[in-house]
Amino acid sequence: MAPVKNGRVLFNEVPQGYPEPGKTTVYDATQTIDPETVPLDGGILIKTLDFSIDPYLRGRMRDASAKSYAPAFEIGKPVYSFGIGVVIRSENASAKAGDHVYGILDHANYNIKKDLSSAGLEILDNAHNLPWSTYLGVLGMPGKTSYYAWKEYSKAKKGETVFVSTGAGPVGSLVIQLAKRDGLKVIGSAGSEEKVQFMKEIGADVAFNYKTTSTKEVLAREGPIDIYWDNVGGETLDAALEAMAVNGRIIVCGMISGYNNQHATGIKNLFHVIAKSLTINGFVVFRLEDKHGADFRREIPPLVASGEIKHKEHVWNGLEAVGDVILAVQKGINKAKAVVHVADD
Amino acid sequence: MAPVKNGRVLFNEVPQGYPEPGKTTVYDATQTIDPETVPLDGGILIKTLDFSIDPYLRGRMRDASAKSYAPAFEIGKPVYSFGIGVVIRSENASAKAGDHVYGILDHANYNIKKDLSSAGLEILDNAHNLPWSTYLGVLGMPGKTSYYAWKEYSKAKKGETVFVSTGAGPVGSLVIQLAKRDGLKVIGSAGSEEKVQFMKEIGADVAFNYKTTSTKEVLAREGPIDIYWDNVGGETLDAALEAMAVNGRIIVCGMISGYNNQHATGIKNLFHVIAKSLTINGFVVFRLEDKHGADFRREIPPLVASGEIKHKEHVWNGLEAVGDVILAVQKGINKAKAVVHVADD
Repeated sequence: MAPVKNGRVLFNEVPQGYPEPGKTTVYDATQTIDPETVPLDGGILIKTLDFSIDPYLRGRMRDASAKSYAPAFEIGKPVYSFGIGVVIRSENASAKAGDHVYGILDHANYNIKKDLSSAGLEILDNAHNLPWSTYLGVLGMPGKTSYYAWKEYSKAKKGETVFVSTGAGPVGSLVIQLAKRDGLKVIGSAGSEEKVQFMKEIGADVAFNYKTTSTKEVLAREGPIDIYWDNVGGETLDAALEAMAVNGRIIVCGMISGYNNQHATGIKNLFHVIAKSLTINGFVVFRLEDKHGADFRREIPPLVASGEIKHKEHVWNGLEAVGDVILAVQKGINKAKAVVHVADD
Repeated sequence: MAPVKNGRVLFNEVPQGYPEPGKTTVYDATQTIDPETVPLDGGILIKTLDFSIDPYLRGRMRDASAKSYAPAFEIGKPVYSFGIGVVIRSENASAKAGDHVYGILDHANYNIKKDLSSAGLEILDNAHNLPWSTYLGVLGMPGKTSYYAWKEYSKAKKGETVFVSTGAGPVGSLVIQLAKRDGLKVIGSAGSEEKVQFMKEIGADVAFNYKTTSTKEVLAREGPIDIYWDNVGGETLDAALEAMAVNGRIIVCGMISGYNNQHATGIKNLFHVIAKSLTINGFVVFRLEDKHGADFRREIPPLVASGEIKHKEHVWNGLEAVGDVILAVQKGINKAKAVVHVADD
């Protein structure tokens, strides 16, 4: 087999505000690879099928000197994210040709890894024969994020009220469905009529478009809220703090309103945590893996396979799209879980 | 006995910023009372000995239409706070002349109450024969605040580091001592050299004056911090968020930096709750009474009596001083637990 193109998406420049396609990241088509002959040195050759693009990636687009829980992308090197690949060749006992793997992969058509465990990759058995991209959304990091934190922090009780921001996204939409299964009243917000419609389909009792409806007014009418699932921070968090009930819980999953705005307004209503005896929990999904991972893998895939838990994807095609998708996710103009489809199985 | 003056401190006007003595509250000396003959209608006549002046009182000085966990003061009526009184006459089985009572009392020389329980008053047995004002500080609401929330939320482990703001106050100083008893490294901040000295005396490993030393620099050097006891909010909270360790706990007891400033800067560093998996707990002491009250009453009074737990008071004399003391406490210019001594026993 002749060499083929090994397209890559490189981190090019630290963005000040929103990441700019072609500037923050660039698509590079100059590299080639011969999948049949490329030396693996005892490793594994993986062909990329799909990538997940998630809000947290903005945090890696920073100066490498700024510490965080996740390392910064390196200028001139490929960006990376959760992805699905298929093993093409293997010189390592941890995987064999044909295995489908899930984990962090460089944004390139091909990845060579020493072995699965050092690369943090796992083989997907896909017992329910679901589309592979399902493992990037409801069965992947976003779904685990919802499930682990809901189990760990919500202390949900039947009859309580929860407010979920970005309720049509991969994280928020599973939170809505978990909350309904626990017997709660669910209020969901999102940024388009299509997303509002999806939130209603998955069971939200109240679903509204925060761009055309005042969050504060909805919460004043439909609250008080016992649980707030925060994906956005900023003014929405301030509105939620005002609408919280005594002994309420706030689960801080993300604060996208501040990711691209260094001059974001601070949170003004934090004093409500005192008067209302609130608890706020922030978390990072991987720290909850050991505690809730097994339950998730047992409970959620069958519900997804049977359709009892619904999910939705917005798929782009080709590595060339990555820069656009990263921006779309930061601006919330993706219609559902953002997936970049790179190659067919 | 001829009628005597029944001085009162009346709430006169809702303050915009800091409360102003003579404007926000006024001292009124026009009322008289004859303790021997005043009709009690089956109730209890109490002579005030001491009042506690605490930061939270600012929250009651608001427009009555603004809801909170504590009711607003009424314009033209006496302000009230925790106090100690002695029963002068009683027509009620719940108390007898000579009993010392603790609870919320109107700021007046004399209070008439229907009975103890409906007034939320309790009789102090004072088994250790401590000065009565002790029951307004380390053995009163401030001490309970420290103890209940430390037990409930700190999850303190030996060898951890805690940062306590307003560490020389009645709440902070007990937190420092509870933390040292639990084997933690303690960093305390306060606003004067005298207070810094007191924090050292009670065991703080690092004590600094936030007016002359940068909180951020101290925490960068002495942190990361596992627990932050927040009495102030604002910039100090932002500095703490930055210095928190992974899985850190923030106990929000008060936010005095915002009480008198409607245009306070918002909290900018809240995103750290995600990356560091932080927990923030706000609370109001009375909601923890049932769970920790009995332990407090068994454990703390003997330690205060033996001197193992230290405390300090700043005593003003006479009801006329109340307005000044309220302001001093909001500005932090009191030197220790603020007490107004009204009458001798």
